[in-house]
Amino acid sequence: MDLAHTSHDSRSIDPAAKEMLRIADREGYATIWERYEKQQPQCSYGQLGTCCRICSMGPCRIDPFGDGPSHGVCGATADTIVARNLARMAAVGSSSHSDHGRKVALLLKAVANGSNTDYRIADPEKLVAVATRLGIPTDGREPAAIAGDVATVAIDCFGNQGEEPIVFMEKYMPKKRFQRLQDLEDTLYRTMGAKTGFLPRAIDREAVDILHRTHFGCDHDPLSLVAQSVRCSLSDGWGGSLIATELQDILLGSPTIKPVKANLGVLEAESVNVVVHGHEPILSAKVVEMAQSAACRAAAEAVGAKRVNVVGLCCTGNEVLLRQGVGMAGNESHSELAIMTGAVDAMVVDVQCIYPALADLASCFHTRFITTSEQAKIPGALHIQFEEQEADAIATHIIKTAIDAFPNRNKARVYIPQHTSTAIVGFTVEEILKALGGTPQPLIDLIVKGTIKGVAGIVGCNNVKVQQDFFHRTLTEELIKRDILVIGTGCWAIAAAKSGLMDLPARDLAGPGLRAVCGQLGIPPVLHMGSCVDCSRMLNLAGTLADHLQVDISDLPLVGSAPEWTTEKAVAIGTYFVGSGIPVHLWPLPPILGGPEVTKILTSDAKDVLGGWFFVEEDPVVTADRMEQIIMERRAALGI
Amino acid sequence: MDLAHTSHDSRSIDPAAKEMLRIADREGYATIWERYEKQQPQCSYGQLGTCCRICSMGPCRIDPFGDGPSHGVCGATADTIVARNLARMAAVGSSSHSDHGRKVALLLKAVANGSNTDYRIADPEKLVAVATRLGIPTDGREPAAIAGDVATVAIDCFGNQGEEPIVFMEKYMPKKRFQRLQDLEDTLYRTMGAKTGFLPRAIDREAVDILHRTHFGCDHDPLSLVAQSVRCSLSDGWGGSLIATELQDILLGSPTIKPVKANLGVLEAESVNVVVHGHEPILSAKVVEMAQSAACRAAAEAVGAKRVNVVGLCCTGNEVLLRQGVGMAGNESHSELAIMTGAVDAMVVDVQCIYPALADLASCFHTRFITTSEQAKIPGALHIQFEEQEADAIATHIIKTAIDAFPNRNKARVYIPQHTSTAIVGFTVEEILKALGGTPQPLIDLIVKGTIKGVAGIVGCNNVKVQQDFFHRTLTEELIKRDILVIGTGCWAIAAAKSGLMDLPARDLAGPGLRAVCGQLGIPPVLHMGSCVDCSRMLNLAGTLADHLQVDISDLPLVGSAPEWTTEKAVAIGTYFVGSGIPVHLWPLPPILGGPEVTKILTSDAKDVLGGWFFVEEDPVVTADRMEQIIMERRAALGI
Repeated sequence: MDLAHTSHDSRSIDPAAKEMLRIADREGYATIWERYEKQQPQCSYGQLGTCCRICSMGPCRIDPFGDGPSHGVCGATADTIVARNLARMAAVGSSSHSDHGRKVALLLKAVANGSNTDYRIADPEKLVAVATRLGIPTDGREPAAIAGDVATVAIDCFGNQGEEPIVFMEKYMPKKRFQRLQDLEDTLYRTMGAKTGFLPRAIDREAVDILHRTHFGCDHDPLSLVAQSVRCSLSDGWGGSLIATELQDILLGSPTIKPVKANLGVLEAESVNVVVHGHEPILSAKVVEMAQSAACRAAAEAVGAKRVNVVGLCCTGNEVLLRQGVGMAGNESHSELAIMTGAVDAMVVDVQCIYPALADLASCFHTRFITTSEQAKIPGALHIQFEEQEADAIATHIIKTAIDAFPNRNKARVYIPQHTSTAIVGFTVEEILKALGGTPQPLIDLIVKGTIKGVAGIVGCNNVKVQQDFFHRTLTEELIKRDILVIGTGCWAIAAAKSGLMDLPARDLAGPGLRAVCGQLGIPPVLHMGSCVDCSRMLNLAGTLADHLQVDISDLPLVGSAPEWTTEKAVAIGTYFVGSGIPVHLWPLPPILGGPEVTKILTSDAKDVLGGWFFVEEDPVVTADRMEQIIMERRAALGI
Repeated sequence: MDLAHTSHDSRSIDPAAKEMLRIADREGYATIWERYEKQQPQCSYGQLGTCCRICSMGPCRIDPFGDGPSHGVCGATADTIVARNLARMAAVGSSSHSDHGRKVALLLKAVANGSNTDYRIADPEKLVAVATRLGIPTDGREPAAIAGDVATVAIDCFGNQGEEPIVFMEKYMPKKRFQRLQDLEDTLYRTMGAKTGFLPRAIDREAVDILHRTHFGCDHDPLSLVAQSVRCSLSDGWGGSLIATELQDILLGSPTIKPVKANLGVLEAESVNVVVHGHEPILSAKVVEMAQSAACRAAAEAVGAKRVNVVGLCCTGNEVLLRQGVGMAGNESHSELAIMTGAVDAMVVDVQCIYPALADLASCFHTRFITTSEQAKIPGALHIQFEEQEADAIATHIIKTAIDAFPNRNKARVYIPQHTSTAIVGFTVEEILKALGGTPQPLIDLIVKGTIKGVAGIVGCNNVKVQQDFFHRTLTEELIKRDILVIGTGCWAIAAAKSGLMDLPARDLAGPGLRAVCGQLGIPPVLHMGSCVDCSRMLNLAGTLADHLQVDISDLPLVGSAPEWTTEKAVAIGTYFVGSGIPVHLWPLPPILGGPEVTKILTSDAKDVLGGWFFVEEDPVVTADRMEQIIMERRAALGI
């Protein structure tokens, strides 16, 4: 057990979290931190990736230090076991994002054909841009007709049974990268005599392919398993996630640059507080919208509340933050802490990263804990099934449920830590280009001159194995200090927002070049690009720069990181970054170190083959040094 | 450690295996049995299903006996952990079968449109039958046109993004069962307020749905997770597997009743021996065909061999056994033993259930161990990539590779155990109906009269935790003794064939009723219905009986078993049997016992909801008693 985690202040660097953790301690509320301590010691086989539960002759496990058998019952080596487990993680991560994208595509179809009237084409300009990119005619056509065609292309990416790469990838991936992956397939077939695909066919099919090849007695070759993990993950980044992002912008409006407040202080003692948590904004955008309705306002006032205050958590929070300017209560590890304030009347969740412990915890308060997705039921929750075609009514019903709970709030138990930071958010590719005057050239010029050395893209969760937000904040500060522009998404972005790094004064923490640029453009040195599904925006930005310069992404001074990563989605994201030519830092340790060949492929061989690779580092300052070094090497290779 | 497994005779009941295991011992060849012993003690958390590796805050584990924490870091209970792990097993199993079916459907399309000329419509009668079932016009149409339409419908089952159930299921599942599942969805939505699907949408989508809902922080409800496991598994049984079976019959010819030889004695000391192993017969059927070519025969004779003797192993073996009458070398646990005979010149594998240890073992001999699928590469193997459009050439190349190896055979090391049994195989639904005079009525009459009490469907693997074939043989003997007709597939079928239970004299082991029927019809009391993907034939037979009687499958005196199960495919098969209304016995223990609620749902609650359920039993005689009891209860309910 890491004793550092037994002291509360060592659990989080966030001042609001520290206050709430003291309350948790006083009141005896269990949190991820207590449960983590109780889980010690954790299984080392699992942590190293060498535990195999794939068939019922097992479970088998291989001690990578040679203390015990070197093979599973079937003969699988540590590398085979590690590679299969990793591939399944990539498949799950990719499927989670992509299933999200599918729902958005199906909704766009329903809106286009008029079978859903609760949603509309909120951003016709983006619709035309996406359609144009996909080669869909737009001139003189009605938005609904264009939207129908866009939806059809998107939906086809999930289920098409041909061998061709998915259309979204073909149209969005920069040409040189696409060509490199295609050439790689040909080269490997020629040199190794075996088919190895990198360009994804249907999104669903690539996940199913992994499930098949990791079945008992199929693929045992670490290289082949890693290659398929890359292919499947690329179908997420340039497929499912990209579709989610682009089509959500069309349906819910594209984010714009705006100031918001972040941290638990966004909860209001006098208001009905509704926290939206999860990842899919289709419902939560409606909750925000309906909370402003006269009926909901009147109902709130009728129970003595000032108003209905909808705030966000995790990536659903990021979505409504970016589009609707909604206050951000916090990232993943804040979800329990929010309930402990006693001021949350309802927490409404959709999918992904929702601790089941929230149901039990909510039951200690008046808080209604509401699940809404058939894919995310939680014992102890109130389930209000969400249906897109009745979105307005269901969102209203959810708000009314919160309003009904408000009078049961025990004011004596309410404690809202008075911490918020201001963050300037909403830096989509479109907004960045707009700020630059419509072309990436000014950014490229700044990079060429060395005013900005390069760009780091960060995504992340929170992870109880790392002091909450510590890695996020320290790494980010270290990078901007080195004149590296930092962009990112997900729970990292929330950490950065809470830490004040997305506010204008944060430019004073940046190196002289970046500081000057921030002053000139009136932007912070750390840019919020969206929820974790919006990592596609980072890919898209990288692709825009690459195509503009007619180079491959792997030539650009770009680098990625997933500090404090927790989920299989992070594995998919990291892998599609690597497959797109971007080196990626990870911490905590991914469960691969028990497989020396897999580790070598991912941390070394991938460099030559893909131009992207993984590295693992525990110290944020050392991580920043290595990220800077990679950027400087790439600059040198470009002769700048 | 189970000491019983340290003595060789306790490892297998098969006389050929016993001889080979003595040789393995003498020569020091490692086998699954040695590796299993070295893996002792195996992890109990894994065996009980309470080990969670879904996020990187873990691994977490819950001692179901209360010794330790009751929740994972996120708050997941033992039941959530068990249910998520189980759902993933069902997704993997379903995806493995279904990916197999997809390849067959794509090949049928290619044959239909003329882009593949190495294959042809081998069974136009079956083509018309399948098309008719699917509602595709056949009158006056060319087979290629009909085949194109059949392939299109099949391919659509994998990728369609609508909400409707897949067409193959709708057209093949008996009406009452389909209606029951549809009603169940409605009832659960009404009573529980949450969507719960049982009728599968696209096959790939249901697997991806499981991956999404088992991602960190999504579905935590055991009932919901089990329900989706059923839905996904049904997309295998009535989708992917069914498509594989039906379309393979069209492309490779439907099996017919025929006598074959089974066990290692099918290897020939004087011939070039090629063992085909795996599951997909598309390549192996060609290997069998090309081995008969003048060129291959001449080449074999040129190196002093009598001929090229292709024999089968595992389910690829079952496929060529049923269609081409090829000798069967053995089931899964025979794969190492076959190589140890020193008489195998090439072992050619496709996908699934191939021990990676075979590569190392083959390298101790002259044996060429040849992988052929991009989804199943094995370090140390010779990879000859199979491409359907060059099937003849590649199959010939593989045979020539075996012929080239023949002169390197060390005759002094050759030992072929002289054991074979005769088996009458090929009891497809069509062949059974033909034997009954074109209608299921005679079988129904026999059941109504009680001459045959009911039908047991068995599938299985081998599993090192059970003495090889012991459970298969004992259970089968016990069932036929009780006048229960036994049908089945997979490695169970091979065990039954090797044991002589599929030969005509085996009727003497049957009870008086079944014995008389076997005598009258000239059939054995134990019917070989195909490879494990052909469990769809069992469903189809059950459906034919149900529709004929206008009842649900769950009303019929049918029961299933998967003794000696090993793979995630077995989980999917068992689950789609249960979802189709058939009670299923399992041994060894499935990794669910750490979740009391999951265990209750699967072994008890499912009975009322689905009409099928699981039960676990270690003793084959007790198992037979319970299976008979279920049949008798169902007979009583029918008033017969």
